[in-house]
Amino acid sequence: MNSFVYQNTTKVYFGQNQLNNLGSELSKYGKRVLLTYGGGSIKKTGLYDKIKQEIDKSNLQCFEFGGIEPNPRTTSVEEAAEICKKQKIDVLLAVGGGSVLDCTKFIGAATFYDGNPWDIVLGKAKVDKGLPLLTVLTLTATGSEMNSGGVITNLETKDKIGNRLPFMQPKASFLDPTNTYSVDAYQTACGAADILSHVIEVYFCKKQDLFLLDCIMESLMRTVVKYAPIAIKEPTNYEARANLMWAGSWAINGLINGGKQQGWSCHPMEHQLSAYYDISHGLGLAILTPRWMEYCLDSTTVDRFNQFATNVFGITVDLSKMEIARIGIQCLSDFLFKTCGLNSTLTSIDIDSKFFVEMAKKAANGTKNSYKALTEQDIEKIYKMCL
Amino acid sequence: MNSFVYQNTTKVYFGQNQLNNLGSELSKYGKRVLLTYGGGSIKKTGLYDKIKQEIDKSNLQCFEFGGIEPNPRTTSVEEAAEICKKQKIDVLLAVGGGSVLDCTKFIGAATFYDGNPWDIVLGKAKVDKGLPLLTVLTLTATGSEMNSGGVITNLETKDKIGNRLPFMQPKASFLDPTNTYSVDAYQTACGAADILSHVIEVYFCKKQDLFLLDCIMESLMRTVVKYAPIAIKEPTNYEARANLMWAGSWAINGLINGGKQQGWSCHPMEHQLSAYYDISHGLGLAILTPRWMEYCLDSTTVDRFNQFATNVFGITVDLSKMEIARIGIQCLSDFLFKTCGLNSTLTSIDIDSKFFVEMAKKAANGTKNSYKALTEQDIEKIYKMCL
Repeated sequence: MNSFVYQNTTKVYFGQNQLNNLGSELSKYGKRVLLTYGGGSIKKTGLYDKIKQEIDKSNLQCFEFGGIEPNPRTTSVEEAAEICKKQKIDVLLAVGGGSVLDCTKFIGAATFYDGNPWDIVLGKAKVDKGLPLLTVLTLTATGSEMNSGGVITNLETKDKIGNRLPFMQPKASFLDPTNTYSVDAYQTACGAADILSHVIEVYFCKKQDLFLLDCIMESLMRTVVKYAPIAIKEPTNYEARANLMWAGSWAINGLINGGKQQGWSCHPMEHQLSAYYDISHGLGLAILTPRWMEYCLDSTTVDRFNQFATNVFGITVDLSKMEIARIGIQCLSDFLFKTCGLNSTLTSIDIDSKFFVEMAKKAANGTKNSYKALTEQDIEKIYKMCL
Repeated sequence: MNSFVYQNTTKVYFGQNQLNNLGSELSKYGKRVLLTYGGGSIKKTGLYDKIKQEIDKSNLQCFEFGGIEPNPRTTSVEEAAEICKKQKIDVLLAVGGGSVLDCTKFIGAATFYDGNPWDIVLGKAKVDKGLPLLTVLTLTATGSEMNSGGVITNLETKDKIGNRLPFMQPKASFLDPTNTYSVDAYQTACGAADILSHVIEVYFCKKQDLFLLDCIMESLMRTVVKYAPIAIKEPTNYEARANLMWAGSWAINGLINGGKQQGWSCHPMEHQLSAYYDISHGLGLAILTPRWMEYCLDSTTVDRFNQFATNVFGITVDLSKMEIARIGIQCLSDFLFKTCGLNSTLTSIDIDSKFFVEMAKKAANGTKNSYKALTEQDIEKIYKMCL
């Protein structure tokens, strides 16, 4: 078993009516706040007004940067960092889903860097601090609210790249399940696929150890499988939204990694899809994951897939391990495409094989140490399985 | 569902060969270190020497306070706090099990308090800071390495009382499973009983919500049930020691509490046993828990006990819920008393009913809001069931 370091310093206010703590949390870091958000849905839901009220109550000065894109762009990072420099911003408040949070993390870092923010994403820039960041989460998916990572897209180079920097860890995050009531069925399903993928990328690892973490990963996956369909059918079901929200954070906040020899597969492949076609990350993962599983399933991996089928989907029929493993993959497909209603093929979302070779080449940079090492050729085959 | 705040700032170095980080972690807080430990087993195992070496390498000045008792005394807190004041200690390093860690937490607080440290335990003293604390864990049980609580015994008043103070949260903890290789079968079993009890106290709660946390609690319990017997039989089995160690921390570091309407039962009852008879806390919990379960099991609680039996012990027989619930309790008894070999009755450890009335009276202060509210009379009955 590998040794590891675990620490997660983010303070999470979970549940309803916690925003009354927002002012005091922000005030710890200064007076000048940059509020960042996406397409403006927070204005429709009333969350924007509530937050502005809290900021006003605490006598903080509020600046704004709205319009952050899904698959947020490096150009947005650059633009907002200029505001931070010019307005001498003390603290960032990101209100939205993973895109807004990720973008804001890099805004905080870029404020202390004079070059192109894309260098920070690539890990080429020397930055050792960022602005303190608080978040109010409105979409359950990426787990960005409780970790130090973020993913940024460069449309010029068609790159979508992630990086983690310790100072990008949010100081505090407000997780109110009712703030996700307005998330539609499609985005709820995409979020569920993203959470599942975060766990699956770690669960299928080269060496089995620390049984406790296997059990916890299965707990996270069972929670998503149980509650995503409920949240899709009953968008204001608190219990469902709360379970998904907390599972989303714990799927990728460090706990499940401990000691596991990881090798992610679907994320590197998906980042190409959303970089080239600007599709929802969760949808890309949903389409890829079952095909990747089919591609990986063989006599060397069957035990793990068998365990997945049994402990996540409760398959206990009297069949061979290989057959049970296949049923498990089918259950995942059915969950994503039938129960959650996501598109099941690339063709159905107008993606053809045009860029597969190019995309596979880029993706292969990230899959050399994957659970099953994937070459460009392997990745191209998996993309084709998704057509 | 209740709203809640979750934060756990402790940095955990998990695994072997992490002590090379000890010097740099200590140095963050100053130059003058008080090393605290228990009966000296760390000298026999060589851990003491390794730690002293690391402290020397970092040019820190080391003071010592050894001999901290199991069920640590308020007199030890007082004595060590005097050393801290006199020697202007900057940082505490607790090396041992829960008793050493708990005692050291209060030493840190008492350093900034001029009255009797027992006031701090009782929550009567106004202290708002303590010395920074690092820990090296040598016994898996109390979870003190990753939370802000501690329990202290006052032999004069025969009280054993716990308190939590945010500044008692360790800054960093070193969890090396090999440091628990020397823990004997009996103490390993007591530790397992303690971990299980920490989870059981939360698992049996008044309102069922946040399914994710139920699953995680079941994961923790299954891990203990699987690995305690292995650690008892093969004391140097790394995987077993590692699983127990990490489960011990997560059983009582805040995660499983979130939103759960708790009401602890066995801990308040046990604290009287170890206050009056100085027995191992884990042993007291082991003897009490199955009897408390039998006492609580009725038509209003049967669903939860049924779930416990099914999800922790894998009972899937075709019987009534009540029968399955009873089998689950029997499985726990068998695990504690047969598999782990702990004494199963108070009589077998020379405790009779002499102080039951007195103890029940004290314990009842902590059981008014328990899962099933327990009066003095209830507690006396449960003690008698343990004879």
